[in-house]
Amino acid sequence: MQLPPTDYLIAPDPGAPRLTRAVSGTDHDGRAVQIAVVEERPLTIFLNRQEIVTAMTIGDYPEYLAIGFLRNQGMLGDGEQITGVDYDEELETVVVRTASQTTYEEKVQKKTRTSGCAVGTVFGDMMEGLERVTLPEAELRTSWLYALAQRINTTPSLYLEAGAIHGTVLCHRDRPLVYMEDVGRHNAVDKIAGWMFREGVPAGDKILYTTGRLTSEMVIKTALMGIPVLASRSGFTAWGVEIARQVGLTCIGRMRGKRFVCLSGAERLVRDIDPAQVPDEERKSGRKGAA
Amino acid sequence: MQLPPTDYLIAPDPGAPRLTRAVSGTDHDGRAVQIAVVEERPLTIFLNRQEIVTAMTIGDYPEYLAIGFLRNQGMLGDGEQITGVDYDEELETVVVRTASQTTYEEKVQKKTRTSGCAVGTVFGDMMEGLERVTLPEAELRTSWLYALAQRINTTPSLYLEAGAIHGTVLCHRDRPLVYMEDVGRHNAVDKIAGWMFREGVPAGDKILYTTGRLTSEMVIKTALMGIPVLASRSGFTAWGVEIARQVGLTCIGRMRGKRFVCLSGAERLVRDIDPAQVPDEERKSGRKGAA
Repeated sequence: MQLPPTDYLIAPDPGAPRLTRAVSGTDHDGRAVQIAVVEERPLTIFLNRQEIVTAMTIGDYPEYLAIGFLRNQGMLGDGEQITGVDYDEELETVVVRTASQTTYEEKVQKKTRTSGCAVGTVFGDMMEGLERVTLPEAELRTSWLYALAQRINTTPSLYLEAGAIHGTVLCHRDRPLVYMEDVGRHNAVDKIAGWMFREGVPAGDKILYTTGRLTSEMVIKTALMGIPVLASRSGFTAWGVEIARQVGLTCIGRMRGKRFVCLSGAERLVRDIDPAQVPDEERKSGRKGAA
Repeated sequence: MQLPPTDYLIAPDPGAPRLTRAVSGTDHDGRAVQIAVVEERPLTIFLNRQEIVTAMTIGDYPEYLAIGFLRNQGMLGDGEQITGVDYDEELETVVVRTASQTTYEEKVQKKTRTSGCAVGTVFGDMMEGLERVTLPEAELRTSWLYALAQRINTTPSLYLEAGAIHGTVLCHRDRPLVYMEDVGRHNAVDKIAGWMFREGVPAGDKILYTTGRLTSEMVIKTALMGIPVLASRSGFTAWGVEIARQVGLTCIGRMRGKRFVCLSGAERLVRDIDPAQVPDEERKSGRKGAA
């Protein structure tokens, strides 16, 4: 299977100086080594004057992260007009300003009152809005899945460079468009959501690929974003599958070489390629399923 | 390297019926398949009458999870006397009752007021107490590290069975003692902390092994628990390393076969085995580094 080179709209930038740091240590033989280690910094997100959250992030695309986080938390509606996004690198803050400030302020109050945080999610809130989600009929050709996996797995990334990071890729048919990475579990997908909202990109014809597990949170975020297909190298959780079935999201997991499993939304699958033609994954692909 | 069989005090129970569910789907060839998928349930933790958090968890050891969470959040001090722990499976709640209720109630109020949650941690609070941590001098023989890795990697677990899960193992010298798994990133380590508090187990001579990354959160939790060594198959984040160096925690990462990297606290390492004697990891070990 020969693939033409792909042009990402946003590709990872593993060489960017602010994202990794060379750290000295010793290896198993006692030799001094220097390895590239990913950064992890706090970023405090404000919605107008209201402080919302401090996220631990690798630090790239703070504006998209902030907008996407607010979107995925339901604090920034479809019609909301963003009048400004101010990132202060020194203060490690990003302020998203909107024309009006009504429903979400109330929401923030509620959230701040009810959540103790640090583990888990504001689950009640996360589920809110799911009942209104209708995901479009869409075709998912298996040839696209294989092409995407091969392209994404060979894209130079921080994961390949330094490990210890999650990746999420927004794709259209067999083309990866935007590849975001982050240490924070859901920051990568929030950055994608922020980019989509900012650029006015439609969701109904997209595929979301993640290196992480298909948990309930991941499934809910994808559905709320309006993307009908979620694919991963990693495995599933039972509740993730249950929610995916309820909202009609196609969930593909355990993608390795020719193999994958579809546990939800198989009606979108178009099997246009014989898996026997797909080469097994090379042992040394460097990619592992992230937990 | 021949190892005697190890006796866990608590080993994973991959066959337990409540932890996984058989889910039907289709594979890459369009064949119907049934796979074991890990469960993911909400568990709401109360401290006396105060609701603290809803964690997403696989569901085993709810009492240890609740106690460990409260410990690791600094809400349950060393001298605190637990008068009862009530788990209600139907309501999905666990209530930890203590003899007195003073400082932590205040802490909860503060936490509830300041955190917006869903991403990241209550970082200010997490760092609190770190300056008082003094980790003991301890010896870490490299032969123990290799023995632990081999034992843990061949222990039947939910990870090997169903994937999509994190594991954390409390070890003493070359012996794994308690092996906890969970879908939630930090639940596994919280369960360990809960077990240690409940059983009055000292921390100064222990090693904590995790399948996950060595992030700031993981480093902080380990240090606050008083455990001087943290080891992982996975990689590091820069801030994790920085904090580990500040508190004097030994951090070993990227453990694969004979290889590992030590980025902090190398003074505890005793190189009592020639790495050339250690066999390379078998390709099919089934274990991957979790992101």
